[in-house]
Amino acid sequence: MSFPEPLQKLIDEFCRFPGIGPKTAQRLSFFLLSRPREEAVSLAKAVIEAKDKLRFCSQCGCLTEKDPCRYCSDPRREQKLFCVVQEPRDVLRLEQTGHYRGLYHVLHGALSPLDGLGPEELRLPQLLERLSQKEAGELILATNPNVEGDATAAYIARLVKPLNVKVTRIAFGLPVGGDLEYADDLTLSRALEGRREM
Amino acid sequence: MSFPEPLQKLIDEFCRFPGIGPKTAQRLSFFLLSRPREEAVSLAKAVIEAKDKLRFCSQCGCLTEKDPCRYCSDPRREQKLFCVVQEPRDVLRLEQTGHYRGLYHVLHGALSPLDGLGPEELRLPQLLERLSQKEAGELILATNPNVEGDATAAYIARLVKPLNVKVTRIAFGLPVGGDLEYADDLTLSRALEGRREM
Repeated sequence: MSFPEPLQKLIDEFCRFPGIGPKTAQRLSFFLLSRPREEAVSLAKAVIEAKDKLRFCSQCGCLTEKDPCRYCSDPRREQKLFCVVQEPRDVLRLEQTGHYRGLYHVLHGALSPLDGLGPEELRLPQLLERLSQKEAGELILATNPNVEGDATAAYIARLVKPLNVKVTRIAFGLPVGGDLEYADDLTLSRALEGRREM
Repeated sequence: MSFPEPLQKLIDEFCRFPGIGPKTAQRLSFFLLSRPREEAVSLAKAVIEAKDKLRFCSQCGCLTEKDPCRYCSDPRREQKLFCVVQEPRDVLRLEQTGHYRGLYHVLHGALSPLDGLGPEELRLPQLLERLSQKEAGELILATNPNVEGDATAAYIARLVKPLNVKVTRIAFGLPVGGDLEYADDLTLSRALEGRREM
């Protein structure tokens, strides 16, 4: 037994998303089929428009409709403070905090020799160029707190040394609202290492 | 701070699905944006085609490309055995077992006074008509094992009484592969009630 072909195709499309298995894909498909046609059209349009209207900023590499992006073209942002992140979504995440007012630089990945991702795959020449051009004062490395992110941060720190820019790494420690008892060993060790005087 | 508008729109579209919150919607959207344009087009097309090509069978009410559906138009299926289910997806689920060879009848819902769903919302006149026309021998009630499904089954059992059709309810009991210790009280009571001689 099999699903009618257009349904199976839709299920297969949903299955391609990470974290969506066949069961969820079926649920999503049946939901869509139970809704009015306009809703299906509206989803299809949103998919295509997002793909067509959004590009990567030629300067920082974040997702944007216009190039340069709203961050790179905003003169009120600190022009000598840079923050390096791995993915475009990380920029949006940091913006949501409302606590960062400098510029961004998206690497579009992290060093990962096992996946064949070397330094030449990342947007590093652009970073060096922007840092020297803007005479940057500080570079915050906000790559992910894991092996790849740490290796990438270490690599960049070495790379920008000749530029005489202050290089910092985003802090690791206990998540706010968390419970010391449930923190894993590594996080706890990092929290101890990073302790500050009160 | 907000997402670029086409991205926000896409996120909103994904958010409309049941069980998909803003976080998951963001993850799906970013994944889509990281893939080649063809994949976005292919998803958009599958959505529209599923909506346009699939309809409900005029006889049993299941999802189908052609009307009558493959089940209603298959002469090898038992023509006097009917199975009532709530939703089109239930038909596909039963077919997957490979253990049912009769006809189906999809109600497109269940009695639910709180949601304003009365008998007139369900495909009951069609059911009565089909049962008499085919001189049905047995009607299996496979509505869901919950309050609404049970009420609907009871209602239909009363409704078809004049037709002199054998009416059965799908069995409730312990799920196969499950553990008696973890079964809930209601399931366990139903399993005892439904015990059979070996």
